[in-house]
Amino acid sequence: MNIDFSDRALRIKASEIRELLKLTVQPNIISFAGGLPAAELFPLADIADVAKDVILNEGQSALQYSPTEGLQKLREIIISQRLERVNIKADLDEIFITSGSQQALDYVGKMFINEGDKIFVESPTYLGALNAFLAYGPEYVEIPLQCDGIDTDRLEELLKSGLKPKFLYTIPDFQNPSGITMSMEKRKKLIVLANEYDLVIIEDSPYAELCFASEQIRPIKSLDTEGRVIYLGTYSKTFTPGLRIGWVVGNPVLINKFIQIKQGSDLQTSSLDQRIAAEYMTRFDLNKHITKIIDVYSKRRTVMLDTMKAHFHPDITYTESDGGLFTWAKVKEDMDTKAILAEALLENVAFVPGASFFANGGKNNFMRLNYSCMSEEKIREGIERLAKVLNKYY
Amino acid sequence: MNIDFSDRALRIKASEIRELLKLTVQPNIISFAGGLPAAELFPLADIADVAKDVILNEGQSALQYSPTEGLQKLREIIISQRLERVNIKADLDEIFITSGSQQALDYVGKMFINEGDKIFVESPTYLGALNAFLAYGPEYVEIPLQCDGIDTDRLEELLKSGLKPKFLYTIPDFQNPSGITMSMEKRKKLIVLANEYDLVIIEDSPYAELCFASEQIRPIKSLDTEGRVIYLGTYSKTFTPGLRIGWVVGNPVLINKFIQIKQGSDLQTSSLDQRIAAEYMTRFDLNKHITKIIDVYSKRRTVMLDTMKAHFHPDITYTESDGGLFTWAKVKEDMDTKAILAEALLENVAFVPGASFFANGGKNNFMRLNYSCMSEEKIREGIERLAKVLNKYY
Repeated sequence: MNIDFSDRALRIKASEIRELLKLTVQPNIISFAGGLPAAELFPLADIADVAKDVILNEGQSALQYSPTEGLQKLREIIISQRLERVNIKADLDEIFITSGSQQALDYVGKMFINEGDKIFVESPTYLGALNAFLAYGPEYVEIPLQCDGIDTDRLEELLKSGLKPKFLYTIPDFQNPSGITMSMEKRKKLIVLANEYDLVIIEDSPYAELCFASEQIRPIKSLDTEGRVIYLGTYSKTFTPGLRIGWVVGNPVLINKFIQIKQGSDLQTSSLDQRIAAEYMTRFDLNKHITKIIDVYSKRRTVMLDTMKAHFHPDITYTESDGGLFTWAKVKEDMDTKAILAEALLENVAFVPGASFFANGGKNNFMRLNYSCMSEEKIREGIERLAKVLNKYY
Repeated sequence: MNIDFSDRALRIKASEIRELLKLTVQPNIISFAGGLPAAELFPLADIADVAKDVILNEGQSALQYSPTEGLQKLREIIISQRLERVNIKADLDEIFITSGSQQALDYVGKMFINEGDKIFVESPTYLGALNAFLAYGPEYVEIPLQCDGIDTDRLEELLKSGLKPKFLYTIPDFQNPSGITMSMEKRKKLIVLANEYDLVIIEDSPYAELCFASEQIRPIKSLDTEGRVIYLGTYSKTFTPGLRIGWVVGNPVLINKFIQIKQGSDLQTSSLDQRIAAEYMTRFDLNKHITKIIDVYSKRRTVMLDTMKAHFHPDITYTESDGGLFTWAKVKEDMDTKAILAEALLENVAFVPGASFFANGGKNNFMRLNYSCMSEEKIREGIERLAKVLNKYY
């Protein structure tokens, strides 16, 4: 049989991270490659009770088809519990439920991108977003990340020069992969530029609540007075990712179009997952659970950074993230971390080579390291193994 | 703000059925409009136990991220329990899990359709498929349905004339909306034509197991020796649709591409939904449950057809389906069932006007009637109300 894929399908490639995860499930490998939350923190007993009760008490609804826009009760809970505390005001017609944030990224691509359209992305940025958008054939324009977030001067320069992107995609808090957070000053600048140049901003916010510092910075969406920021949230990092629940907050015209896209794409997010989440959030205080997660992750982060400091050659630099799941290390310009990974695997330690986080490639001397999903002991051991591999080059 | 949607997004419209469902939730309306399974048949107590056990015993996996291709155990169960009995042989690399069959339809469109590509569809056909494909800009070629399935002579004529579609989409069993089943003879003819003209067939099979006749006809996929049939299955009609679980069976090259598409689209189907389904199918015999569903639905079908026979004007024709969820009625050529629906709602009865099931529109004198999700008494009452509305025109 002759297989005649669409141009779109030919552009789509396997995600490097997902393929890597397959290599790193062997128990003797210490993997800093994933982006998994710590499963030992899932409140299993509580969720088990909630699941059973939901099925027994509301099963005819919880297991039936349900509205495309998502369970109303869950949307109300997200508005009152997750959005209000970060100063985002939203009505019911300004939020809908997705099957995780990845789905929202696909829908953003589907909704905005014609082949050849320009998209502004941070450099580096989340490779799952790059893969999602790629299907729709955009031309990526990379804007450098600085230690306080996207280079807004460079952004302004590009906009002034007449470049008109379909949107700017940003992860302002504890960015994946870099761990960098955008300063309040830059968030304000971004909104001013967006209003001036009629720019749509996609604010992807999976990590903001995993904040180790004393205060979270307000989301860009909370500064948006013109409905031009589309805000993506999720329970994947603060509750569980196995229930696939994310949300999109935006102006009602956009939300309505998103819902139409979802009708054709998967009808709805799992009714049961939504009911379980809604009931859990009603009975328990997610904020308390998040406090526990922060406590564990911030310790792991510190252990990772301390071990890097003690064992990495001093010329290797890395970000000291104040939240989220990742740190991002930079080695010598002439080193290729893909080749390094092969060596690291021989030492039973894994990470994600940084190249795929750059929309247009070409930067090979970075690596993403995850600290959320393993014990402090393993982090120490894994970083020491990695140091052995890296320091040989210095 | 100026909203600059993609051409694709501009093509996507709200599904008429989903919008209608909103109108018909009022309790006094008897709605034949949906396509919902009977929620009172869901085995709630068993599923509740399974859910609780799965979370307590395997919760760290059941609530964590899981592989894009789907839970291996569930794929094995589908192969041995659902596919082998209909003579479909599949290895593990020939099946992957989707978030319901609707997602598979979206992926089929994403995988094959470039703007302007020709797609062959039955006339009428499932409007959710039309909407899913539409996003990718195909040109639909309609092939008439006869009482024993797609018009294979017309198909041959089109293929002979040199038309080269990206694929043929068919629902061979108890088709949505028509209730028609393709004969074995036509299935064989279809495979011969497909092999001769290098045609890809999408076989959408959500209803085949809801067979009221003594014997199910073998799926087209079971006759496929060249890996050119992509077979779509689902638990939505035989178990529950609220757990969003479907599957795609096809040759490994295609399955691999589907998995890449899913990576960018939603990473994975709900881990919990998959674990619950796998554990339920291990503990209980789904075939026994299906027997119960068939018993209830076939009685409801008979009540609907008997009441139509007794009350509809004899010039109104309709299909006598041998399975599935629907019958399909035809009224006078000059009647528009969209206008009739408005009148019917005044009598507190609803159905889906047939026009949207025709890929290129233009046929307004059909209506789809669902009998699966309400009591025999309500079916009688609803059909009598509908007869009152329709018979006025005769």
